[in-house]
Amino acid sequence: MVNPLEIKVERNKHKKTKPPQDQLGFGVHFTDHMFVMDYAQEKGWYHPRIVPYQPIVLDPAAKVFHYGQTIFEGLKAYRTGDGRTLLFRPQKNIERMNRSNERLSVPQLDEALFLSALQQLIAADQDWIPSGAGTSLYIRPFVIATQPALGVSPSEHYQFIIIMSPVGAYYPEGINPVKIFVEAEYVRAVIGGVGEAKTAGNYAAGLKAQEAAKELGYSQVLWLDGVHRTYIEEVGSMNVFFKINGTVLTPALNGSILDGITRSSMIQLLKHLDIPIEERMISIEELYEAGRNGTLEEAFGTGTAAVISPIGELSWKGEKLVIQDGQTGELSKKLYDTLTGIQKGSLADPFGWMVEVSETPSGVL
Amino acid sequence: MVNPLEIKVERNKHKKTKPPQDQLGFGVHFTDHMFVMDYAQEKGWYHPRIVPYQPIVLDPAAKVFHYGQTIFEGLKAYRTGDGRTLLFRPQKNIERMNRSNERLSVPQLDEALFLSALQQLIAADQDWIPSGAGTSLYIRPFVIATQPALGVSPSEHYQFIIIMSPVGAYYPEGINPVKIFVEAEYVRAVIGGVGEAKTAGNYAAGLKAQEAAKELGYSQVLWLDGVHRTYIEEVGSMNVFFKINGTVLTPALNGSILDGITRSSMIQLLKHLDIPIEERMISIEELYEAGRNGTLEEAFGTGTAAVISPIGELSWKGEKLVIQDGQTGELSKKLYDTLTGIQKGSLADPFGWMVEVSETPSGVL
Repeated sequence: MVNPLEIKVERNKHKKTKPPQDQLGFGVHFTDHMFVMDYAQEKGWYHPRIVPYQPIVLDPAAKVFHYGQTIFEGLKAYRTGDGRTLLFRPQKNIERMNRSNERLSVPQLDEALFLSALQQLIAADQDWIPSGAGTSLYIRPFVIATQPALGVSPSEHYQFIIIMSPVGAYYPEGINPVKIFVEAEYVRAVIGGVGEAKTAGNYAAGLKAQEAAKELGYSQVLWLDGVHRTYIEEVGSMNVFFKINGTVLTPALNGSILDGITRSSMIQLLKHLDIPIEERMISIEELYEAGRNGTLEEAFGTGTAAVISPIGELSWKGEKLVIQDGQTGELSKKLYDTLTGIQKGSLADPFGWMVEVSETPSGVL
Repeated sequence: MVNPLEIKVERNKHKKTKPPQDQLGFGVHFTDHMFVMDYAQEKGWYHPRIVPYQPIVLDPAAKVFHYGQTIFEGLKAYRTGDGRTLLFRPQKNIERMNRSNERLSVPQLDEALFLSALQQLIAADQDWIPSGAGTSLYIRPFVIATQPALGVSPSEHYQFIIIMSPVGAYYPEGINPVKIFVEAEYVRAVIGGVGEAKTAGNYAAGLKAQEAAKELGYSQVLWLDGVHRTYIEEVGSMNVFFKINGTVLTPALNGSILDGITRSSMIQLLKHLDIPIEERMISIEELYEAGRNGTLEEAFGTGTAAVISPIGELSWKGEKLVIQDGQTGELSKKLYDTLTGIQKGSLADPFGWMVEVSETPSGVL
């Protein structure tokens, strides 16, 4: 096991100019440093280091290019009004990354080292954390298979890398409701597959449907299950919730749906607020029926990037369903304000979700 | 459109030492040159070039690392007894690559340029083509998404690369029958997904099952369909054929099975030999029933890497099925000898499959 104290740091002497806080976009600007650690079958993970942000240099036969053995995570650090830095439930991302690693035959990461790497990297680039409304520092840990060999088998070499990007809102529309296309032709994932894992192929598989939906004026795709083409799974980069007749419903985890951290936090928050919440199978027919008979009160997606996105309209096989007159519902607004308030440190955190990042963690920088 | 004559060539001045022909392995040694071409949304594909084999240098945010937008192909060049170089049906790989590109929202490649790139690259490294029995030059064209941006959307930048590797037999066992584990828990692909495309995520999705099978002593996994878990789809890197009661059966293409070039060649060859061949749905129950009642005469997989692999044993839910006493069947042997004979130029090619590579194509090298 690698000792977290042994993370070597090479300071970047050529700091970049930071973009204006109102022109951050999502994932297009990157900070001055990155974390890198190597893996070799014969010695495990080794040489953890913080280095200047720099290109990855790989043999063209590296397995990641050919067989997609790669895992990623996404989480955010927030700058509070009083200047502290808070991470939202990093332990959950660390645990999920190791579950994804397990599914994709990638070696497990040491949890303490992972957390320490996050803390130290954020401390090194803390002047990159934006403070404006809706902004945060998006953190992208990922593992890639680096062995240069074309046989189809788990790689014997990997790199674990963390990069960071100051971001504005994921959707240019912000908290305004999005229009979602219910996909009837393409399938994202199926039980027995890798839908539950945060791995590259799941996202590549969704691009075609997403492009087609965009052309029709929809921001994202709502996926149905691959077996019956009936049960609601998730939106491209979000889990989904529906408020029907006073009760909030969300698809139960089944192995092909991402176990979203914002999703599980939302369930906890709803219970805390004494709002009925059910995790179960939801058919698209049931949802449309509720829409037609007026009991579908609100719909929203949850994810790290967007936090909460109200859904104002669905389209399924040519039938449009306008929800809450296309406006943001009361509950969606309340949940968004509560969760982002906790994340930004302006509201109390009764759940113990936020982890403070020290400016100088474990005597390293 | 890029003019094939405009492929720039930078000769490698530091040629590697070639490995002995009996120690080639599969996809571990690479030749002295590679082909590279760039794509930018605003100008299309540009700057086609043959350069010394060298690392790929990418921003850590390059989309290929995160969202798996990548396509590959695999084909082989053979050295004939009289010193000529033959490619096996390259046009089929080029067409399939563009079908995969379409499915994964990757821009189309110009077919003439692609073929010319293959020819010129092979000519540049023709001293790398091995001549021994079972050897060939394995060619791996691939496209990777290179735009450094973390939003989930098709990349605006790509690289198209071709690398080449002198190879021995894919299976160390050679033409000896392999043992295959019929997968009942994990699923590779489902109709509506990307199973038909030659994209990285399909292979990553199969690693876990493959590892589990290996631990039980099986070389590969036979996938069943993701909806009914009943119909035979394909083996990890091969399509499959079964001879039952004198008729050869192979699963019909359904969108989740790879449209194998060796598969379609095999069908053509069987028809040429007047051997009954049917493409249709085959349930694992039907196969096992044929095995139990003695009508399952032979089984084999087909693929570019292994050409033909006889299957000597299956295991499904704990029930073992030994085929042809675990020996190579007469038909498997005949098909293997015929196809490899055509590929190596020692047998006549009545189908017009082989394309000769000129030593100095289109006045470039």
